[in-house]
Amino acid sequence: MLKGECGERIDVKFTVAFQGELGAFSQVAASRLAPDYTPVPVAAFEQVFESVANGKCAAAVIPIENTLHGSVHENYDHLLRYDLQIQGETFVRIVHNLIAPPGVKRSQIHRVYSHPVALNQCRHFFEANPSVERTPFYDTAGSVKMLMEKDLTDSAAIASATAAQIYGAKILQKSIEDDRENYTRFFLLRSKGKETSSGPAAGIRYKTSVVFSMRNMPGALFRALSAFALRDLNLTKIESRPLRGKPWDYLFYIDFIGHTSDPVTKHALGHLAELADMWRVLGCYPAAGK
Amino acid sequence: MLKGECGERIDVKFTVAFQGELGAFSQVAASRLAPDYTPVPVAAFEQVFESVANGKCAAAVIPIENTLHGSVHENYDHLLRYDLQIQGETFVRIVHNLIAPPGVKRSQIHRVYSHPVALNQCRHFFEANPSVERTPFYDTAGSVKMLMEKDLTDSAAIASATAAQIYGAKILQKSIEDDRENYTRFFLLRSKGKETSSGPAAGIRYKTSVVFSMRNMPGALFRALSAFALRDLNLTKIESRPLRGKPWDYLFYIDFIGHTSDPVTKHALGHLAELADMWRVLGCYPAAGK
Repeated sequence: MLKGECGERIDVKFTVAFQGELGAFSQVAASRLAPDYTPVPVAAFEQVFESVANGKCAAAVIPIENTLHGSVHENYDHLLRYDLQIQGETFVRIVHNLIAPPGVKRSQIHRVYSHPVALNQCRHFFEANPSVERTPFYDTAGSVKMLMEKDLTDSAAIASATAAQIYGAKILQKSIEDDRENYTRFFLLRSKGKETSSGPAAGIRYKTSVVFSMRNMPGALFRALSAFALRDLNLTKIESRPLRGKPWDYLFYIDFIGHTSDPVTKHALGHLAELADMWRVLGCYPAAGK
Repeated sequence: MLKGECGERIDVKFTVAFQGELGAFSQVAASRLAPDYTPVPVAAFEQVFESVANGKCAAAVIPIENTLHGSVHENYDHLLRYDLQIQGETFVRIVHNLIAPPGVKRSQIHRVYSHPVALNQCRHFFEANPSVERTPFYDTAGSVKMLMEKDLTDSAAIASATAAQIYGAKILQKSIEDDRENYTRFFLLRSKGKETSSGPAAGIRYKTSVVFSMRNMPGALFRALSAFALRDLNLTKIESRPLRGKPWDYLFYIDFIGHTSDPVTKHALGHLAELADMWRVLGCYPAAGK
């Protein structure tokens, strides 16, 4: 048994680990991917994976890519290292709000706390309010928590609406991010052998995620992709990563539309097995729309 | 004419813009890629591109990918938007040092300032020194500058050796980063038509960088890669980016070994032109080793 934020005992079978403070965007994703589960905040991505691998939590939610910043490579590396299964995906639109303790007025704000990435994504706001000082903090939701704990009356935070709600703060201005095409894709992870779905459900589009490595030779990637392209399987994402300790050799992560129990997918993976030095299915899950 | 840090007038013809404070890792890259040029620090990546596009600086140096964090997607987007040419690349090993004002002893340090990414890359140091408080700051080199300006005696910064040298600070401990396989790849950029090299020099390996988009159809990427693979051209990097405003359509950035004046490269680019919706050569430059 774990202890929740309020000290109550919570059932490990229904816990989902995520990185950050309560109110982080990962928690927003967790509330969609595992709505009946208790969110358990941990400090670092590695601990998120570790907590599922050692059975302290039943599931985990991690960010994998953002439309402005690209892939979260640390998490791709953890997917390789920990033998967990991707069980679901969701896209969360990143909406940054200006948040302050109740009663604090917009005109009182001289300082705004948030994670540097969030501060950078609200540049137009700071250009329009040059007297407001941008103050880097370790976490978006954590900056709301801090404001409330210290009861600051001259400061605001930039964070999710969920963070405002959790800590009892007030949204002074909604959606102050520069670019509205700011989405983060999250994965739901579980231990192997604890898959919830069996076969594909009718009418649902599935994605399969695979990692593989090839020797660095001309046309290596082209050959690997032939396993999918010659079978009309549609790739939705490709990511290359330098192989640690082997400069110039690459790992490839691909996602394609298909269920691992489809005969075509089975043939494609068999073909990939012939060509690749190493390969592994990271998961098969219902494809989400933005 | 521009004014340098010390107020002296500097010749625009020999200036190179980079993002960050003096002493940033981008300046380390600039000192290799444009050693005779005066480095001009600017606040944001967009301003770096802007300053070359509007002729305020002759060249720019930008980070494009890091072995731990992956691609700097913002800069891939700027490469597309601004019509500059990549003229060179270099790999800089990211070495984080513990830096303090002269005379400050290691035992006096209670607080360490740096960019959150740098603080995260030195986790082992903070685990071994639990009494030291990690304090996020907007910039690595900027944290050294601040320590020196305020003459703090209980604090240190994490930054490059160049930052210590520029601001007259002292390195208390070298190379405190967790992972030594931490490299950043940088590009040297110039305006089109201001290319320094003409044809390929003998004995030098060249890279060509291309961006292209394909309609989202099964096998689209496979077909595009055939233009290179069927000619035995070796891809060194592939990056996919969602096309802004067109969810599910992708832009691809590829680097391959070859000079744009080689007949094989010309044929490959002609073939790509047949297949792609849009394509552009971003540059052709001598390939660097790590």
